[in-house]
Amino acid sequence: MITLALDTMGGDNAPAIVVFGAKIALDRLPNVKFLFYGDKAKLIPLIKKAKLDMARIEIHHTEEYIPSDMKPSLALRKGRASSMSLAINAVHDEKAQAMVSAGNTGALVALSLFSLRTLPGVDRPAIATIIPGVNKDTLMLDLGANSESTSRNLVESAFMANIYAKIIMDVPNPSIGLLNIGEEDLKGSARIKETHRILSGSDNLNYYGFVEGDAIRFGEVDVIVTDGFTGNVALKTIEGTAKSIMTQLSMEAKSSLINRILAGFAKLVAAPILLKFKKRIDPRRYNGALLLGLNGVCIKSHGGTDEYGFYRAIKYAYLAAENNLLSKIQDSLALQHSDFFINDEES
Amino acid sequence: MITLALDTMGGDNAPAIVVFGAKIALDRLPNVKFLFYGDKAKLIPLIKKAKLDMARIEIHHTEEYIPSDMKPSLALRKGRASSMSLAINAVHDEKAQAMVSAGNTGALVALSLFSLRTLPGVDRPAIATIIPGVNKDTLMLDLGANSESTSRNLVESAFMANIYAKIIMDVPNPSIGLLNIGEEDLKGSARIKETHRILSGSDNLNYYGFVEGDAIRFGEVDVIVTDGFTGNVALKTIEGTAKSIMTQLSMEAKSSLINRILAGFAKLVAAPILLKFKKRIDPRRYNGALLLGLNGVCIKSHGGTDEYGFYRAIKYAYLAAENNLLSKIQDSLALQHSDFFINDEES
Repeated sequence: MITLALDTMGGDNAPAIVVFGAKIALDRLPNVKFLFYGDKAKLIPLIKKAKLDMARIEIHHTEEYIPSDMKPSLALRKGRASSMSLAINAVHDEKAQAMVSAGNTGALVALSLFSLRTLPGVDRPAIATIIPGVNKDTLMLDLGANSESTSRNLVESAFMANIYAKIIMDVPNPSIGLLNIGEEDLKGSARIKETHRILSGSDNLNYYGFVEGDAIRFGEVDVIVTDGFTGNVALKTIEGTAKSIMTQLSMEAKSSLINRILAGFAKLVAAPILLKFKKRIDPRRYNGALLLGLNGVCIKSHGGTDEYGFYRAIKYAYLAAENNLLSKIQDSLALQHSDFFINDEES
Repeated sequence: MITLALDTMGGDNAPAIVVFGAKIALDRLPNVKFLFYGDKAKLIPLIKKAKLDMARIEIHHTEEYIPSDMKPSLALRKGRASSMSLAINAVHDEKAQAMVSAGNTGALVALSLFSLRTLPGVDRPAIATIIPGVNKDTLMLDLGANSESTSRNLVESAFMANIYAKIIMDVPNPSIGLLNIGEEDLKGSARIKETHRILSGSDNLNYYGFVEGDAIRFGEVDVIVTDGFTGNVALKTIEGTAKSIMTQLSMEAKSSLINRILAGFAKLVAAPILLKFKKRIDPRRYNGALLLGLNGVCIKSHGGTDEYGFYRAIKYAYLAAENNLLSKIQDSLALQHSDFFINDEES
């Protein structure tokens, strides 16, 4: 049995997306059960509506929650009884093997770091997510857990992502690229060059070298390592570009639909092409980022997702728990510790 | 008369794209003439083929050029007689009002900085380009002139981009955003917060505040300021995302075309929609990045562009020269110098 703790109050459309997302999970994943943290008065009607199997859920009442604009420092001081905190604590207390929240990212990083701490030897957690590509997917990190990263953070990210890609993406020997502004050895900041030097010297990693921003969607490598600032900008740039192209495309399609002669055929033909395409690049399928490096599994769902998206985030938590991700990362870090003799001059 | 110097040897398909790009410019821009720097033996047959008006071009022979993978430091030592260097020198010697090159970016930054120096008071140049959006365009900088930027560099970029957007994009009072990983005041690195503080206090700038990566394509602001590392990654991420979506879309269109019943109609209908769309997002229309902050106008064309793309880069050089961009930037920097009391603790 796999038990997952859910922050039912985080996200734009919580708790509905959480309850109905859990419903999909209960239908599709045989041996999962849930601990719901949130406001009972709001949850009960939704749970009845979704006809959840009460034998597989447990409700832990709290009316407190972390607002989406609350500062992480305030969340640490005032948010200890919040649904997010309690779900994290369930992982800490080993009542649940993983937790999922669609709430405030900064608060989630702060509260989970405070409660769970990092894995032995790990300096900082990093947010990792899978980005869909043309031929294959790419795992990218850090997406914003840290606004400044040292070369030590980047090297640790590479080693942890290596295990995550093996387990969750099923890639036997993931190739790992370091995001830079050119592919030659001489480019980039001192921090990037130092990281490159360490990763190039590691025997325990399939290190590919530098990659550029346009590699992200083309599966040049299985894993792309970068700092939290650059990764966050790149992720949001991908989202913005995809959204803007879809907007422009449907503007073109509409203006062509007006075309008097072809209007009837256009509806028949162009619509299914666009629909299939939208399905293929559906961001909900990839919803769910892991806070890699914590001593516990915390999955961050996109705040604006729907129930299907939230289910996909639950599934990442489930896979991480089912495959003992944490202990495998720990084993790997211990084995590979010889690669880590880093002069952490920047931290 | 506006005289532009062209590095005819830079770029994947040089010198052909340069000669035929110049042909388009000579046809469309009435009062322009060109100084061609490059290998006469290669240029003459192309010039004949393109039937260029010999009264409006002047060929300056050199067989030397900067290879695309040459290190900037080597270009500085060995590349002084190259077509790129000579075109830059033409601007320095006031024989030309601006220069255009599709060659090695790093070498172009190094050589132009060496020859032209920065404008008085400017620490470092920044690469600025216009990015097409859904409703309006956005000027973004720095796209990689520097791999590390101080808050002083970012503030200077904001002031220079303000003038560039007024003149080249015809926006009366450009709104200026600072790229960050969140829109709240408390996010980002120390460097970003310091830049935000200075720009927020400026009376001479329409400063909008922080923007995120997804703002780039949606025209939230007219100008986006960021460091060269992040800007380069963001630009290449946009290119990669757009390219991958087009690839996936045409895969879908092809698989639907096979659809036996609708195949005939599909060709008629979907093809023109895609064609119109491709035209709208055509990156060639936006080809041409300015090295902002130099004491001279240097335009960098994409290395892989075609003759139409190169013409567009020429047009930016033409507009900058025609509108006295440099002296306007200088006036603005001098006027606004009171905003610049920066403790440059990071440089």
